Amino acid sequence: MSRPGLILKLSCPDQPGIVAKVANYVAGHCGNLVEFAQFSDQLGKKFFARLEIETSELDVAVEDFIDGFGTLGRSLRANWHFRRLPYRMRTVVLVTKTDHCLNEIIWRTELGELPVEITSIIGNRDNCKSLAEHAGIPFHQVDMDGENRANGFAEIRRMLEEQNAELIVLARFMQILPDDFCNAFAGRIINIHHSFLPAFIGANPYKQAYERGVKLIGATCHYVTADLDAGPIIDQEVHRVQHFHTPSDLVRLGRDCERTALARGIRYHVHDRSIIDGHRAIVFPD
Amino acid sequence: MSRPGLILKLSCPDQPGIVAKVANYVAGHCGNLVEFAQFSDQLGKKFFARLEIETSELDVAVEDFIDGFGTLGRSLRANWHFRRLPYRMRTVVLVTKTDHCLNEIIWRTELGELPVEITSIIGNRDNCKSLAEHAGIPFHQVDMDGENRANGFAEIRRMLEEQNAELIVLARFMQILPDDFCNAFAGRIINIHHSFLPAFIGANPYKQAYERGVKLIGATCHYVTADLDAGPIIDQEVHRVQHFHTPSDLVRLGRDCERTALARGIRYHVHDRSIIDGHRAIVFPD
Amino acid sequence: MSRPGLILKLSCPDQPGIVAKVANYVAGHCGNLVEFAQFSDQLGKKFFARLEIETSELDVAVEDFIDGFGTLGRSLRANWHFRRLPYRMRTVVLVTKTDHCLNEIIWRTELGELPVEITSIIGNRDNCKSLAEHAGIPFHQVDMDGENRANGFAEIRRMLEEQNAELIVLARFMQILPDDFCNAFAGRIINIHHSFLPAFIGANPYKQAYERGVKLIGATCHYVTADLDAGPIIDQEVHRVQHFHTPSDLVRLGRDCERTALARGIRYHVHDRSIIDGHRAIVFPD
Amino acid sequence: MSRPGLILKLSCPDQPGIVAKVANYVAGHCGNLVEFAQFSDQLGKKFFARLEIETSELDVAVEDFIDGFGTLGRSLRANWHFRRLPYRMRTVVLVTKTDHCLNEIIWRTELGELPVEITSIIGNRDNCKSLAEHAGIPFHQVDMDGENRANGFAEIRRMLEEQNAELIVLARFMQILPDDFCNAFAGRIINIHHSFLPAFIGANPYKQAYERGVKLIGATCHYVTADLDAGPIIDQEVHRVQHFHTPSDLVRLGRDCERTALARGIRYHVHDRSIIDGHRAIVFPD
Repeated sequence: MSRPGLILKLSCPDQPGIVAKVANYVAGHCGNLVEFAQFSDQLGKKFFARLEIETSELDVAVEDFIDGFGTLGRSLRANWHFRRLPYRMRTVVLVTKTDHCLNEIIWRTELGELPVEITSIIGNRDNCKSLAEHAGIPFHQVDMDGENRANGFAEIRRMLEEQNAELIVLARFMQILPDDFCNAFAGRIINIHHSFLPAFIGANPYKQAYERGVKLIGATCHYVTADLDAGPIIDQEVHRVQHFHTPSDLVRLGRDCERTALARGIRYHVHDRSIIDGHRAIVFPD
Repeated sequence: MSRPGLILKLSCPDQPGIVAKVANYVAGHCGNLVEFAQFSDQLGKKFFARLEIETSELDVAVEDFIDGFGTLGRSLRANWHFRRLPYRMRTVVLVTKTDHCLNEIIWRTELGELPVEITSIIGNRDNCKSLAEHAGIPFHQVDMDGENRANGFAEIRRMLEEQNAELIVLARFMQILPDDFCNAFAGRIINIHHSFLPAFIGANPYKQAYERGVKLIGATCHYVTADLDAGPIIDQEVHRVQHFHTPSDLVRLGRDCERTALARGIRYHVHDRSIIDGHRAIVFPD
Repeated sequence: MSRPGLILKLSCPDQPGIVAKVANYVAGHCGNLVEFAQFSDQLGKKFFARLEIETSELDVAVEDFIDGFGTLGRSLRANWHFRRLPYRMRTVVLVTKTDHCLNEIIWRTELGELPVEITSIIGNRDNCKSLAEHAGIPFHQVDMDGENRANGFAEIRRMLEEQNAELIVLARFMQILPDDFCNAFAGRIINIHHSFLPAFIGANPYKQAYERGVKLIGATCHYVTADLDAGPIIDQEVHRVQHFHTPSDLVRLGRDCERTALARGIRYHVHDRSIIDGHRAIVFPD
Repeated sequence: MSRPGLILKLSCPDQPGIVAKVANYVAGHCGNLVEFAQFSDQLGKKFFARLEIETSELDVAVEDFIDGFGTLGRSLRANWHFRRLPYRMRTVVLVTKTDHCLNEIIWRTELGELPVEITSIIGNRDNCKSLAEHAGIPFHQVDMDGENRANGFAEIRRMLEEQNAELIVLARFMQILPDDFCNAFAGRIINIHHSFLPAFIGANPYKQAYERGVKLIGATCHYVTADLDAGPIIDQEVHRVQHFHTPSDLVRLGRDCERTALARGIRYHVHDRSIIDGHRAIVFPD
């Protein structure tokens, strides 16, 4: 993902000739299509695509290429978005006590797997402070207990805006976001829920899973909406369990599901492989 | 499973010395323990075990060995059950239209994977008749539409009793069982639900799954209780899906989950590898 | 797959503008692109695509549309293939004793999952005869023992040619094909090997797996080439195993891997979702 | 695993009455069997067991209990081993450049998932030094290049002996161990091989996997013997891949398999859940 180029994400009403028109625009200006993933939703009558375009041979400036696409985009009644490569997405991670998801994000970022720049880590507890500091990332503790909750969210929001956060990751952040917060950052907040949604919505899903006697536990990475645990699902992971696994065993095994599903969900989002479509997410995996 | 022997299933309050006492009884009469699976539930303070005993060297008659165990069993305040090997469990399969689960059961039975004798197949439609006949198994059609429902269940119950059915398999039988029916055959009815329970209880789970945009679909094999889709889970299976899978694709992919989970669930039950413990099932897989 | 239309499979050297050119050709004649899967192989400098085109609005006859593509195809130095929908691929299944793979193919065909017409089943044993007959498919037994082997293969070849077989499925056919046979039907023979290739090439893979003490067994569906068990892999499946599984348990569990991998492999092939590229197969799964 | 108690691992020729005798010994001295996993190998005529015994009510000193078992153990011609709980296994991790496996081990150790004490980390490169230091674990760099190889291994051996290392983990240590080194620490060296063994033995397995066009990649955690990549397998993990995954994608996805398989392998070993039996490992998973 480090070569110069563009990612184009596009969705529009389905109609004949979309692929030809879009590909023509790219080829007509000497762009090189490296990847073209598309989905014609025959039920919803919509079209979704993700294009990866090498731009080294473009016959115009990249800015001009992006601007010029507008005419075609509007004629298709499309939503679209260009992103210049290479890029690193400005990301803030929200945490409470447990650090396994945060650790996974930092590790993959340091390895170069995730093109993100973690501008800060915000916690309503200080348990993750040392991990943040070792990684050289600013850590902010925000008091959200009791009546400080509203102020806490206001403070977080201020920080997100100051840092121009493009992505907010809830890495086992144990606070329910206010509706206005969800709406203000719609499509930019990713959560990891520690169950195989829609099973076990809400608190203590591993305890619920133990009591129900399920034979598989899971984790779900999803976009956050005002409707609790009901946002579009990006990825899910499961792990087989048996009768002898106690609730704390489920917590232990579930951590691995959570890390995996969250890491993949973030990956898809920051690589623009995920397009929200109402209650669902179109995901072109890599 | 074809050598002469016994399977002993046992559950009792947890207490010191159970394994020694039970193993002593077996060894004291020259039984040979081929398999001894046990589970000490530290949370529920219960003990569960499944023993496989070769009886060719027993110093008493098998009947005597079984009877004599009663003193120990009672002293442990246990529930226990002996089954003589080889055996074939008398099984009735209930179906409606779709035949993939039935086909799977017949195929595995013919291969010798499942020690069952299918005494009859009962359908409230006739779609599975030809499959039954080719396998040489009696097929009975029972009209359960509209006001014939109660009579239908009474007729099924009569047949189950006549045939001394030990196991009733609901192989995509699309009728909700009356409470008294569930209670009459408690612990002997196995259902396959076409979702990853407890997600998507009730009708049309694949449509629900499509609309929720899940990334994994599943199937759940469970014991039937009067509480719909809430009986003890024996096994579950999942399959990864993507945005382009339509509800009918989910039906197609789900069939494979259903076949697999049901076949394993039946296998565990007929091999006495499953012990019901309230809302949960203890399963010693093989 | 039952609506009128075309599938176009295409591979060519990678070069700028392919997607635009191909999509233009389709759109220029009022074809509607329902699916466009492509892969630009940056390492091999090749381009692969599979298009699904609705043709109800074409401005020329379908035959004309297909012919006219030739000019573009040649200019791209492409290999390409059109298939008219709906279609059913003429398929011959070769078997020996075990019938689980055959049963799976017949079952999925009858359900409408696989658009194939099984023109005959050929066995060098008669174990599968009854299954074939119940499905209403001609069964031919061919003696291939000892010195009859060469004659046997000649007879099979004669039948394949007479029946215009487009696909030959080796459904646990326990004979090694002669090189000239492989070459005569290159790209049209699919085998299921009962191991996770390239581990355990050759005979008795489950016994080999047991002795090696692996913790996962598998099955591999691949195109057959003259090089034993080395043809392009279409799909693979695995199943977790433990120390207590005997070689015959591995055979039992492996059957499920074999059925699954073979069914998927055939599905991808008959839906033109698989393109052979040297030792590898490009597969666009559905 | 933090309550006072004992783990007993035992293997012996199969014979009648083993379970009774062992359980009697435990119960006879007021030990409480919390877990009793056993395997009667009908093919190899051997018996394997792992017992977890609470000792708070023992009627003798723990040391006495352990000593006294000798008479029974010898009469069974058994190999056996007692471990007192709680314990932390003295572990040395050997690394070269990549740190993902090391990171996983440290993370799980800090979480309390793995009862190990990492006495030092030894690398033939210094890439992992900072990670070790942040975790507060001594890091030793040993030059093993060219003619320093033999001296390097001698130095490592000296350190292992000084530190009384009970377990040596090769966490992507890219050096082939000399035979005498393997033999000196037989049964105490665990390696992670970055392929699904026995496929792709030796160097560059991901490149081999890419060229073979496999549809699943894997990793194998095994005990190290003098025979390269042929030691008893403790655990394996796989991940589905597609044609578009480059060799470097396989390296990326493989890292997750490696971390998972190694972590589970170590877990089974340090919890005495793994018993070596010739070329195979008996593993009682939790």
